[in-house]
Amino acid sequence: MSDLPSYLESVAKTIDRMIDRDFVDKAGELNKASAHLLAAGGKRLRPAVVMLSADAVTPGSSDEILQAALALEVTHTFTLIHDDIMDDDRMRRGVPTVHTKWDMPTGILAGDVLYARAFEHICMTNSKDDAKVRAVKMLARACADICEGQHMDMSFEHRSDVTEGEYLEMVRMKTGVLYAAAAGIGAVLGGGNVMQVKALYNFGLNTGIAFQIQDDLIDLLTPAEKSGKDQASDLREGKQTLIMIKAREKGLDLKKYQKDLSPAEINAAIKELTDAGVLDEVQKIASDLVADSNRHLSILPPSKERQLLMDVGEFFITRSY
Amino acid sequence: MSDLPSYLESVAKTIDRMIDRDFVDKAGELNKASAHLLAAGGKRLRPAVVMLSADAVTPGSSDEILQAALALEVTHTFTLIHDDIMDDDRMRRGVPTVHTKWDMPTGILAGDVLYARAFEHICMTNSKDDAKVRAVKMLARACADICEGQHMDMSFEHRSDVTEGEYLEMVRMKTGVLYAAAAGIGAVLGGGNVMQVKALYNFGLNTGIAFQIQDDLIDLLTPAEKSGKDQASDLREGKQTLIMIKAREKGLDLKKYQKDLSPAEINAAIKELTDAGVLDEVQKIASDLVADSNRHLSILPPSKERQLLMDVGEFFITRSY
Repeated sequence: MSDLPSYLESVAKTIDRMIDRDFVDKAGELNKASAHLLAAGGKRLRPAVVMLSADAVTPGSSDEILQAALALEVTHTFTLIHDDIMDDDRMRRGVPTVHTKWDMPTGILAGDVLYARAFEHICMTNSKDDAKVRAVKMLARACADICEGQHMDMSFEHRSDVTEGEYLEMVRMKTGVLYAAAAGIGAVLGGGNVMQVKALYNFGLNTGIAFQIQDDLIDLLTPAEKSGKDQASDLREGKQTLIMIKAREKGLDLKKYQKDLSPAEINAAIKELTDAGVLDEVQKIASDLVADSNRHLSILPPSKERQLLMDVGEFFITRSY
Repeated sequence: MSDLPSYLESVAKTIDRMIDRDFVDKAGELNKASAHLLAAGGKRLRPAVVMLSADAVTPGSSDEILQAALALEVTHTFTLIHDDIMDDDRMRRGVPTVHTKWDMPTGILAGDVLYARAFEHICMTNSKDDAKVRAVKMLARACADICEGQHMDMSFEHRSDVTEGEYLEMVRMKTGVLYAAAAGIGAVLGGGNVMQVKALYNFGLNTGIAFQIQDDLIDLLTPAEKSGKDQASDLREGKQTLIMIKAREKGLDLKKYQKDLSPAEINAAIKELTDAGVLDEVQKIASDLVADSNRHLSILPPSKERQLLMDVGEFFITRSY
């Protein structure tokens, strides 16, 4: 039995406490809007990756860079707030989205405030200045890439010919680079050398892509009672996920599922995709990415934290919600 | 005759060239949207303040920090793109706004891309790492404050009892802090000491507030042929500017001007405000701010650049468009 669940729980407690102090307890309506989604929970996976990466290169260093762990969660939350406006999503993490509870302008500004504060918190770590500068660069590059990924994702809505390569590039930018930045920033602020930083960056990138692929599988496979989300919404909306792309390559016609689906119809779709080998192939792509990311970690000295990072990768592709 | 016009012209040329290379010439639709407003011109006043501040503390240092001068223009442009969405403005700098030419999601993302790139460009300067970290902090704090200022400005739309203090606080955050950051970042990256950085920061803050007050005067006084903007739009919309607040304090009723106004009616309003002493008082607040900002500069050694900074302050409150 891995120590990961209890480790993640302790990270979440630490980050939640920092969020309460640095965001929730601030006066003013815009600060309230900025803190709203941040305080609505979440697994705090990116902060955990920051802290594990720091400790994997220098044992005990994560205590000095908690502010950077927080910064990654803040960055992630800013992208969610802006994405929710673009997609006009109404609920997230069980609460109304910021632009729903307030309004669109406040949603834009709430995200923009968090964006700035992420960079401030990176600079608050007890690290050397050259490491902070590298961390700022890494975070900024990740943010620009995330925008590109979101733009690409939206452009896919008008297409039905998205290729596997295009999908993986979109996911790399939309989800992968922030996990890459989490691991890379943890490593650089923790005092890692160039090789270690690069290895952890690539670990984060691959596991991040795998994380998103697993998300697509969960959408199809996990009942709403368990996931808290509509089952098979991607299928119903004809969204270009890796599952849909692989199915198209195999000549499957999934258009018939683009309607309100009964549980029996969802099961029929799952059976069709399983029988054609689509789900196996998609799962294999995710598990190959995680295996590859573990190879990156092999240059690090063995440690409890290195093992926990491998457990994170494994968790990403085995979770069912 | 001041050297300022020719200095500003040379800065604008430099910055325009950097924008062409680093933004306009990038492939991809989102990059095009990000570059659109940036490439549409502008006086490049904030980059000029960055460069003059650097040279005022260390002669010749501005050559090493051109990337930071660009970063301030990029930051300013990101705030304009997002503001235009919130206010649903259609035109800016003679071109359609980003969300008008593309769409709202692309506008949000285009602003978010510039936001990230501003921090990247700060890190690209030839400065010491500790200076870069301080500059990143200053820029991040300015961005958070600008959001607060824009939020406050929007909240004024539903009120008719805004006080002079509230107005000045809003303008400090919405416009002042970015000029403050421009001067402070120039000073810190140029190698200025703590006193010099503080003095230049305060210089930028005061002149930035004066800049905005002058903008309100221009809105009222400058004909559309000259300013490129609708004359007296603030008056027509009942916007809570310092002019309106002072007029209210004096018991003037400007509600009668909240309609489409003929040139004769605009002139009548100007006469009413002049006769009551409102315009003089508003102009005095702006010129006092500039006088105070010049006092901040007095701790710097005399130099051509220090004089040009004073000329910038003077220009801010004497320009008619």
